[in-house]
Amino acid sequence: MLQAALRSGAASRRCVFEVFARRLPDGRRYGVVAGTGRLLDAIESFRFDEAEIADLRSRGVVDEATLDFLTGYRFDGDVWGYAEGDAYFPYSPILVVEADFAHGVILETVILSILNHDSAIASAASRMTGAAGTRPCIEMGSRRTHEEAAVAAARAAYIAGFASTSNLEAGRRHGVPTVGTSAHAFTLLHDDERTAFQAQVDALGASTTLLVDTYDVTEGVRTAVEVAGTGLGGVRLDSGDLVVQAQEVRDQLDSLGATSTRITVTSDLDEYAIAALAAAPVDGYGVGTRVVTGSGHPTASMVYKLVAREDDSGEMIGVVKKSKDKQSVGGRKYALRRLDAHGIASAELIGVDELPEDDGEGVGDRELLVPLVRDGVVVGRETCTVAAARERHEASMAELPRSAHQLSAGRPAVETVFVTETP
Amino acid sequence: MLQAALRSGAASRRCVFEVFARRLPDGRRYGVVAGTGRLLDAIESFRFDEAEIADLRSRGVVDEATLDFLTGYRFDGDVWGYAEGDAYFPYSPILVVEADFAHGVILETVILSILNHDSAIASAASRMTGAAGTRPCIEMGSRRTHEEAAVAAARAAYIAGFASTSNLEAGRRHGVPTVGTSAHAFTLLHDDERTAFQAQVDALGASTTLLVDTYDVTEGVRTAVEVAGTGLGGVRLDSGDLVVQAQEVRDQLDSLGATSTRITVTSDLDEYAIAALAAAPVDGYGVGTRVVTGSGHPTASMVYKLVAREDDSGEMIGVVKKSKDKQSVGGRKYALRRLDAHGIASAELIGVDELPEDDGEGVGDRELLVPLVRDGVVVGRETCTVAAARERHEASMAELPRSAHQLSAGRPAVETVFVTETP
Repeated sequence: MLQAALRSGAASRRCVFEVFARRLPDGRRYGVVAGTGRLLDAIESFRFDEAEIADLRSRGVVDEATLDFLTGYRFDGDVWGYAEGDAYFPYSPILVVEADFAHGVILETVILSILNHDSAIASAASRMTGAAGTRPCIEMGSRRTHEEAAVAAARAAYIAGFASTSNLEAGRRHGVPTVGTSAHAFTLLHDDERTAFQAQVDALGASTTLLVDTYDVTEGVRTAVEVAGTGLGGVRLDSGDLVVQAQEVRDQLDSLGATSTRITVTSDLDEYAIAALAAAPVDGYGVGTRVVTGSGHPTASMVYKLVAREDDSGEMIGVVKKSKDKQSVGGRKYALRRLDAHGIASAELIGVDELPEDDGEGVGDRELLVPLVRDGVVVGRETCTVAAARERHEASMAELPRSAHQLSAGRPAVETVFVTETP
Repeated sequence: MLQAALRSGAASRRCVFEVFARRLPDGRRYGVVAGTGRLLDAIESFRFDEAEIADLRSRGVVDEATLDFLTGYRFDGDVWGYAEGDAYFPYSPILVVEADFAHGVILETVILSILNHDSAIASAASRMTGAAGTRPCIEMGSRRTHEEAAVAAARAAYIAGFASTSNLEAGRRHGVPTVGTSAHAFTLLHDDERTAFQAQVDALGASTTLLVDTYDVTEGVRTAVEVAGTGLGGVRLDSGDLVVQAQEVRDQLDSLGATSTRITVTSDLDEYAIAALAAAPVDGYGVGTRVVTGSGHPTASMVYKLVAREDDSGEMIGVVKKSKDKQSVGGRKYALRRLDAHGIASAELIGVDELPEDDGEGVGDRELLVPLVRDGVVVGRETCTVAAARERHEASMAELPRSAHQLSAGRPAVETVFVTETP
């Protein structure tokens, strides 16, 4: 495609590409944009090195003119996007890329890979932290997803309100708080549970969390308190009927005087299981598989579409595929989140070729697209740090109507409205 | 966990860890092991560099004794595993790791991440290539998964019978054949469809594949043949009712004299959609989202469990968690696939602490665990090349009973039988 466009000359036409999702995963009320910070790094360092060029040449993938273009490739265009951590809805213009065709089209895969993956994780994680309320969620799913996806997943979950991760590399690379845990293997390694608990307390102090369900939970809890004392930091339950068991363990801990010992539960938790544990005396949730796989929706299904391009006279014109089953709207988009008098979102307003007008009511509408890259230079890094994105997620959640936070299947919590008639 | 085990001295106990899946994804008949080749590279290069050690120290993650251990870490144990590309069933001992606790436990996450991800993709891809029969499947889902997971997914899909990928890096890194495609953006970039097609044919010749559904399919096909001639290589359909449309396009191509022009279909295909197109005149399938996300099952749910360890007298003893809801079997496993007189698998035989005996009937039973690492040195690389794994997948599929290849939900096609009584 690139080779043909370079040859026809059309590759130099100025173009606008947009990232959007035609729909949210079935029944979801909102999505969460994540990955933007990682994407800015990826765009900035997007290059073809000598080994890659040599490989393309030796396999005859593209011609010499295209190899020349790739060798000198530096993204030189402009990018705007929803700030990382913000909510999005169907057709929200999550990213807008303006560049010539060749420079813009080549970024499609890396842009979509990062946004589709990270947003899928953040969108699922956000529902979990919403269901958990003030109780912390710990991301511990690295072993159930690709080894690099795991690092990105820990980052996305943290942006969406998770308290910490078991992925140490996410701590190093992205500053996500990390926590350790002991597995059943640690208990089984020792001659008996007491020896294992003693070894853990000796090494980490009484404030550690002991895994008490390797053999018999009641005996495990008793042994744990005997070994660590009533100052034991926590116990972890990883199997069984957690609602019933958490209450039994709480009662037992209290009766032993370990009233401040915390109970962490794990074992295939998702947002529904977390919600079902709301009334149980649980102090924290360890979430694995379901958060790193997007809780049933491992991709955000975002697409990257050409929506406008230069014509022969140098004018930008909207373009759109005529599809019966895949609705798209041509032309460059602008977006505003309409907020009512209480600061609650009531509509996602999308304008074609112009920013929708603030209606002057309520607390003022919020413009959603922020500058990220200008003439190839990243300008939006501060708005997409992990810390900024995490704060924005919290603020964005507070702005959504209550219906957004229902776990039951429903329609998007905020309706998307195109305020400009398309040509 | 590692810090406590180093301190208690238990870290030096010889251990056996095993990777297995307690169940297949709902209704699936078999799974496909993938990732082993990538895993051998990962084990061989598993190190903690200065920056990583400094990070762990500065964040106070572990103590100095543990940092010393990590600084000098080299895996020095033994690994056996199912050869990459082979089928597996519930409780198949897919990987067996023998090492001291410290050296073995630390590999848990990387082992599971690679095997869970790659096996999930290969297991889904295998059902797709099975449904496609002799028609080629093209992996084109990179943009719907994490950017590094995409490269691994292309590799896994190829092992499971896909013909090629659109991921160029998978071509470079793993030797997977690559193909290009043109998108709707290419057509929309040009002033009209004819100009776009002409540009593509000028650059790539008449043997290229033209995307004909940007505007009107009938007109698109007519224009395509007018531009490229009856020697046009192929057309691609990416929307609409593909069963009906493929027939209409075939009829039109034939009536225009383009009888050898191939029809490739794309558009959210999965194994069921591919099966539904079996009677349609389709020459190839482009599969995206559903293959890279495991067609509903993005992880293989494999676990890494301590199953045996040294006791104080130096004897190896089987260990197992006593769980009501998560059945496991202690002790080192050996596995044999029982084959009948026609070479068809009739059972997955698992022995504890000993290899099940060949019953001497049929074509001879097949031992499933092959040596992969000995004393820290990779010895199984040749059995896990991409080419070898792809061949093994094909052979392993031919060995399964016919019921394995039904797409409808069912039980595992081969029953897992523990031939040794557990203590």
